Amino acid sequence: MTPTPAGADATAGRDEAQIRQLMAGKETAMRARDAERLISQYGPDAVTFDLAPPLRRAGEQVRDAARLRDWFAGFDGPIEFEIRDLAVTAGGDVAFCHSLNRLSATPHGMPDRFELWFRSTVCLRNVGGAWQIAHEHISTPFYMDGSFRAALDLRP
Amino acid sequence: MTPTPAGADATAGRDEAQIRQLMAGKETAMRARDAERLISQYGPDAVTFDLAPPLRRAGEQVRDAARLRDWFAGFDGPIEFEIRDLAVTAGGDVAFCHSLNRLSATPHGMPDRFELWFRSTVCLRNVGGAWQIAHEHISTPFYMDGSFRAALDLRP
Repeated sequence: MTPTPAGADATAGRDEAQIRQLMAGKETAMRARDAERLISQYGPDAVTFDLAPPLRRAGEQVRDAARLRDWFAGFDGPIEFEIRDLAVTAGGDVAFCHSLNRLSATPHGMPDRFELWFRSTVCLRNVGGAWQIAHEHISTPFYMDGSFRAALDLRP
Repeated sequence: MTPTPAGADATAGRDEAQIRQLMAGKETAMRARDAERLISQYGPDAVTFDLAPPLRRAGEQVRDAARLRDWFAGFDGPIEFEIRDLAVTAGGDVAFCHSLNRLSATPHGMPDRFELWFRSTVCLRNVGGAWQIAHEHISTPFYMDGSFRAALDLRP
């Protein structure tokens, strides 16, 4: 048994539950193409490292619903989005979680649906009792075999 | 003015200083090809998302000094490694930091040195008064122009 301050376990459990709820909200919003709901999860100074260039985005570049709506418009039909193996670590007002995420969709005008697994790290701050995304990093690895292709064919 | 518990600012400052020292130690260890020192920074259950496949590594796969020594042996001459724009957020016993990192080295048997900028997110836990890396995510984005090449030519 590790001794903990009275109530610490309950607080940690509540924080983890709230963060899992936020990540479940991201899944729902991605499938619903709900740009505004996604944007609302990020703090005003959020910094993101995304699948596509540039290297980083910050602040208003992150909270740009029009860009996200354009991205959704690039797909025909349903968007599948799944967060797997979500591990959450919360302490006080800072937390992080990581997972492997699956995105499947049909690019506009293309005959076939793609399926992509990528890594996700989401770092959060508790501001006024609510968890906000302060930093997000999503990526695929790349093959160091001379081709330098993104490794888009990996499965968990 | 945001009211803070007495000593909270001093604790946050001390935590940030310790984490910056850990990251500076990573810079030094990379340049010195010091696999053991690098490994010692990770907690026993660390999960990493690396530049190259697989999608994830965990536990003993992370703390594998032999693999790291093999990786260092793949380069001739000095290894340059720089951590830029390090932003640290610490609260209680959980913290995260992100940065843009530069690696420059000459692959064994090749005439020229490469230079690569990549994104780094490091998530930490304070265990017994010392910060350990619990999760690390490093990556480059990739071009969504149909080539699906890793974006290795970006600069901050």
